[in-house]
Amino acid sequence: MLPIALSIGDPAGIGPELVAEAWARRDSEGLPPFVAIGGAGLLATAARARGLDIAVQPVGSVAEAADVFTRALPVLGEEDTSYTPAEPTQDGARFALASLERAVALAASGDAGAVTTGPVAKSRLAEVGFDYPGQTEFCAAAGGVAAEDAVMMLAGPSLRAVPLTVHCALADVPRLVTAELIRKRAHVVHAALGRDFGIARPRIAIAALNPHAGEDGRMGTEERDTIIPVIERLRREGLDVTGPHPADAMFAPHQRGSYDAAIAMYHDQALVPLKALDFDSGVNVTLGLPFIRTSADHGTAFPIAGTGTARPGATIAAIRMAGEMAARRFHG
Amino acid sequence: MLPIALSIGDPAGIGPELVAEAWARRDSEGLPPFVAIGGAGLLATAARARGLDIAVQPVGSVAEAADVFTRALPVLGEEDTSYTPAEPTQDGARFALASLERAVALAASGDAGAVTTGPVAKSRLAEVGFDYPGQTEFCAAAGGVAAEDAVMMLAGPSLRAVPLTVHCALADVPRLVTAELIRKRAHVVHAALGRDFGIARPRIAIAALNPHAGEDGRMGTEERDTIIPVIERLRREGLDVTGPHPADAMFAPHQRGSYDAAIAMYHDQALVPLKALDFDSGVNVTLGLPFIRTSADHGTAFPIAGTGTARPGATIAAIRMAGEMAARRFHG
Repeated sequence: MLPIALSIGDPAGIGPELVAEAWARRDSEGLPPFVAIGGAGLLATAARARGLDIAVQPVGSVAEAADVFTRALPVLGEEDTSYTPAEPTQDGARFALASLERAVALAASGDAGAVTTGPVAKSRLAEVGFDYPGQTEFCAAAGGVAAEDAVMMLAGPSLRAVPLTVHCALADVPRLVTAELIRKRAHVVHAALGRDFGIARPRIAIAALNPHAGEDGRMGTEERDTIIPVIERLRREGLDVTGPHPADAMFAPHQRGSYDAAIAMYHDQALVPLKALDFDSGVNVTLGLPFIRTSADHGTAFPIAGTGTARPGATIAAIRMAGEMAARRFHG
Repeated sequence: MLPIALSIGDPAGIGPELVAEAWARRDSEGLPPFVAIGGAGLLATAARARGLDIAVQPVGSVAEAADVFTRALPVLGEEDTSYTPAEPTQDGARFALASLERAVALAASGDAGAVTTGPVAKSRLAEVGFDYPGQTEFCAAAGGVAAEDAVMMLAGPSLRAVPLTVHCALADVPRLVTAELIRKRAHVVHAALGRDFGIARPRIAIAALNPHAGEDGRMGTEERDTIIPVIERLRREGLDVTGPHPADAMFAPHQRGSYDAAIAMYHDQALVPLKALDFDSGVNVTLGLPFIRTSADHGTAFPIAGTGTARPGATIAAIRMAGEMAARRFHG
């Protein structure tokens, strides 16, 4: 399989040390080959600061990285920067942007099997010319996909959850929950679960917006007017969709086994159960792209960068998931 | 300690068999003495249907129940009804109401140490004259407390959570989240954690309404305009209150240890993490009453009543918690 391209993220965050830690654990975690994009010096320094005795080796191509991976952490690209944990700089933001751009381009061109992106500070990227709300939207543009068709899914061992609306005020959610948006998202999720997750007949559970699914309109009418009709339409279109489910019931242990992915109506409805259950191993997957993109579901964590306490579980899970998705997509 | 009065709940639901099961496990679970209110025949039949070989003994007073409890399930009151699992009847609803009224009255008068209520179907109780939205509001009236001052807390091994707003449409939540409501609830929770849960200096975490706590007003202004000012006021009033916390972060494992109770802004924000983590053992506690009231955090579950599959964990946890609260409140 082609190696996975890893962008490093902000060099003052926990990204560099977690790339090094993931490589150090490649055998025990059974990770697919990957290549870090830029930062050979940065990664070597971050590894030493974390007490990791690893070899870092520059390579000239993704293909070369596959050979190097067993004995050293391969790094593709000349870009580098100094290691100043917990102290973000503009030079560091420029490095993070270059690493992201090249890693995504390699996945988009098919030269890498997938891209796993490291954590960045969006406000700092904006200062050096990054013109997207986040990395997901950047990936959509790189893939030639409308931003609204790139769908964020959070995946952990307990749950896969897709928030229908994401970064908006709670007061705006009822207005933004439309039948067309639910329908689009459900089709993207259905296709991705089949193609990239190997689920022949994906079961999708759709959450209610209101408590108790509105209790027949007594606590909100969105279920009756919007969600139930679109679920019926999706079923007629051949999708295995259930709901609207009262959110407190659908994330309970005995319910979670009854679907392959949950579509939640808003940010916290998806992320509260995901992080309550799978905090250390949550992966952010972008569905609907022509290439595969995953990332650890956490931020730069500047305050703990360089202290050796950052946990690598989510980074390892993101790399592993990217490898599994690539294996299915490219090798059936 | 005075026995706890147990209302049976709807006789067609899982309430009767779980009362019998809780008594059968009194020793292994270390439960405090309790007395069932009404339903001697019903309970004996439900126990047999569940395969439990237990003795049921009518008693003339709560005090007598304390002696009987070690050898038989004590039942106080003549009310009884036939056992028709999964088939609710109006006669059954009348029985459930009588059991509830007497059990609550015994706790309110101080004759019982607490009341643990069984699951009822609100719509069926309404048909026989019950004029309250739910048992919590009924308990408030019985205790001479305004309904808005009786505060629902969900408590499990992982989390205690109080929803600020409960049974309303999500679209109404932003309007209903007021500084005065947050302040009232926080004071009730603070007092109850001290008096009934033995926490000398209760730490209360208040959730944000919007994702990422609104990100300085970019995704909603309620944090800036309402929640932050009232948190500052509560601190000046001497309470240990933190927030507003992004909800997805505050229910993650490493955060849950940093507070004794969470105040959530709406129903699902509290109940999604509680049920995801503690589904089988969630207890519904009413704070702010002059007496102690708990219940299992589940409904009548008519479809599985009588099948022997209903899990008793939440009922056992509700009885145990009532006993612990009563021990603290009455015996310091």
